[in-house]
Amino acid sequence: MFPGIDTVTDADVLASLAHDEAEWAAVGKPVAAVRARTTAEVQAVVRECARRGIPVVTRGAGTGLSGGANAVDGCVILDLSRMNRILRIDTDNMVAVVQPGVVNDDLKAAVAEHGLWYPPDPASAPWSTLGGNVATNAGGLCCLKYGVTRDYVLALEAVVGGPAGEYGTAVRLGHNTTKGVAGYDLTALFVGSEGTLGVITEITVRLRPARRESPRTVVGAFADVVAAGRAVAETTRRGLLPAALELLDRMTLRAVEDWKHLGLSADAEALLLAQIDSPGAAGEQEAAAMADAFRSAGATWAEQSTDEFEAEALFAARRLAYPALERLSPVLTEDVCVPRSAVPEMLSRIAEIGARHDVRIASIAHAGDGNLHPLIMVPAGDDAAREAAQAAFEEILAAAIGAGGTVTGEHGVGLLKRGGMRRELSPSVLAMQRAVKETFDPINLFNPGKVIGDPGE
Amino acid sequence: MFPGIDTVTDADVLASLAHDEAEWAAVGKPVAAVRARTTAEVQAVVRECARRGIPVVTRGAGTGLSGGANAVDGCVILDLSRMNRILRIDTDNMVAVVQPGVVNDDLKAAVAEHGLWYPPDPASAPWSTLGGNVATNAGGLCCLKYGVTRDYVLALEAVVGGPAGEYGTAVRLGHNTTKGVAGYDLTALFVGSEGTLGVITEITVRLRPARRESPRTVVGAFADVVAAGRAVAETTRRGLLPAALELLDRMTLRAVEDWKHLGLSADAEALLLAQIDSPGAAGEQEAAAMADAFRSAGATWAEQSTDEFEAEALFAARRLAYPALERLSPVLTEDVCVPRSAVPEMLSRIAEIGARHDVRIASIAHAGDGNLHPLIMVPAGDDAAREAAQAAFEEILAAAIGAGGTVTGEHGVGLLKRGGMRRELSPSVLAMQRAVKETFDPINLFNPGKVIGDPGE
Repeated sequence: MFPGIDTVTDADVLASLAHDEAEWAAVGKPVAAVRARTTAEVQAVVRECARRGIPVVTRGAGTGLSGGANAVDGCVILDLSRMNRILRIDTDNMVAVVQPGVVNDDLKAAVAEHGLWYPPDPASAPWSTLGGNVATNAGGLCCLKYGVTRDYVLALEAVVGGPAGEYGTAVRLGHNTTKGVAGYDLTALFVGSEGTLGVITEITVRLRPARRESPRTVVGAFADVVAAGRAVAETTRRGLLPAALELLDRMTLRAVEDWKHLGLSADAEALLLAQIDSPGAAGEQEAAAMADAFRSAGATWAEQSTDEFEAEALFAARRLAYPALERLSPVLTEDVCVPRSAVPEMLSRIAEIGARHDVRIASIAHAGDGNLHPLIMVPAGDDAAREAAQAAFEEILAAAIGAGGTVTGEHGVGLLKRGGMRRELSPSVLAMQRAVKETFDPINLFNPGKVIGDPGE
Repeated sequence: MFPGIDTVTDADVLASLAHDEAEWAAVGKPVAAVRARTTAEVQAVVRECARRGIPVVTRGAGTGLSGGANAVDGCVILDLSRMNRILRIDTDNMVAVVQPGVVNDDLKAAVAEHGLWYPPDPASAPWSTLGGNVATNAGGLCCLKYGVTRDYVLALEAVVGGPAGEYGTAVRLGHNTTKGVAGYDLTALFVGSEGTLGVITEITVRLRPARRESPRTVVGAFADVVAAGRAVAETTRRGLLPAALELLDRMTLRAVEDWKHLGLSADAEALLLAQIDSPGAAGEQEAAAMADAFRSAGATWAEQSTDEFEAEALFAARRLAYPALERLSPVLTEDVCVPRSAVPEMLSRIAEIGARHDVRIASIAHAGDGNLHPLIMVPAGDDAAREAAQAAFEEILAAAIGAGGTVTGEHGVGLLKRGGMRRELSPSVLAMQRAVKETFDPINLFNPGKVIGDPGE
């Protein structure tokens, strides 16, 4: 079908490429997968698929948690993980140009050699690709102070169709400069569009100077997650802006410790981890103010960590939380985001919903952003538990909307949040969303059914 | 035409509302101006105008520099300057909700009372409105470190038509939270859309904690603007990230001094002003490193200002540059943005273009962003000089595109940069731009002819 392009039709390999990490999202049956290595190959694939009416589902590392990269029946999977070259690190302009298959941590390491830093740090950073990060507008731990993926994307190359011309046309969106307002911001429209508007084949990101000191870590222990949530609200109220402010509950800590033996004690019901990267005395002051905010909100103890290994182990635990819990049972991952002042109320609602449905919910959160990831644990093969979990999942979405929040802070809509998004947005705004898709992909070629759902849905 | 809504038909008042501050941009003849006070009034105006086929040109303070707010023949001017209420300052969530007519500096002052800060600071901040800032995605001095308007807009209310429903429908776009990826980023699409997609009637912005110390100012004097440009490139190369890095030339300094008598000496051909706001010893170190970078790039002198009044006067001079020069003659304002490493070359090209066309060009620049504002001075009533200025204007745009830059960094396309934008973007991308407009405003009601030009153009 695609002469000269690496094509996979082996059923087992195909099956492994047909889905991301979302639990219980529908997975269709692809007709083939292609591993493109160049923009020209992507163009050829898109052109041929458009001609034959075969849907194109683009994927990177497949670490998504909403089913955005899941195959639909009869599609071609367009795997970009081999387009993994860093094309340019421009130290004079603090900019990097990469192919979409470059792994986040690989970019971080490469720019660090030049004293530069690419801040966006989803927990999947050791595996996830920049293409996927851009497609979902990935967040992470340090967005609180440093913003999300969108804030770093200056320009994109994408293979598109629709108004741009024949399907398979490559376009350059955005600017090489840090400012630029010539026309509508199509770059921002493509960031977070989950492969539904075209295929991103090159990404220009801005970088920051590397931090000159190791960040400080302040740890607070709390008698329950709601008390930790109150401490989060208190830090915001005091105008503290740490680089990260993460919440982990006891279930999560124990799961990581049982797996990795990092030497974490799991005595507290909930921990808050604040990372402070202001340099020198200012950082020292902020760390003291943070500990004070924790204590005044009821922490059982709160201290600046003086042990760099311990601090690193705690953040490692945060990053390992999802795979650690997944070892124990299938996990349905939430990604709601609420105003920071609503964090305690939302945590309390989640506990109540879990208790009512008799499901175990582990809590991790980018708490400083109000971005909560309750992880609903479901014993494998237990249909009743699965139904209960799914009911809890939907109720948590409703609670987040009710608290003035959103159904997805950073994982994307994919398949799992389509219903939630329809409840969150007004019919008028949903119609505007659909109009974007219909305008840029009139034949519904790119990742059909994701984000806005199927036509007429 | 609009019962119960304050309507202006007096010819003189109407004429004063029919244009912004752009020099030589075409100004049409409006049929009326309306001063809306509520979203409901905006909806009524839009509904009625859509029914009658009357174009709607929205304006705030009219401080734009690209003609984006200029009337088109037969339009209604929708003046939002009386929708100037700050609706909410939410200190718990570091968010403010404002009407579009709130003046930038008024918001800054109001949130400062709560220990908060709204960073975007276009030089027009004492007069320009948030609605206009959002419509043009305004930049300013501190974008270098703190980003542009888009980076602060979380949510919008807008009165729209097209896919959302009948013209006059009010929609809410975006999120109340700092993260949110439910659907395409329509908020980012509306930011910078210059009133061509709808009328923005409410704006939710994120705030930052106020800075706890006065920033430091480092001043460098240079023998010519190109040498100053080399110093800019050098600071970036060294990974320095000041809050602002501004360039002023001698012509500008003298014009401000002659007008305001701030006590500035205008000995140097060019000055660089760096503002450094890292607290404590870190700020001290950065200031020293900045002065060192200036000196190593050939500054005739470079020092941290020890006199707060002097430092404030220098930044005041920067903000007053445009009106000070405008007192002397009509000024055609450029707004090109180039990669920072191209700043010296671009400044040299501008000087060469000015010399060749025998036009005086004053130079101010947000130099750290590569955002240059050459100000082309034209003796009033001299047609030959005007033609020469316009030729120089177009050549500077071409030079910026050639250097990998853009024709507008922060002022917007409006009328003056439509031709430049068409040269900057590929035909495919221009078609995508037009498709956005046609999708969201199928009857071409909102600010027709701006940004993407008239249909078929």
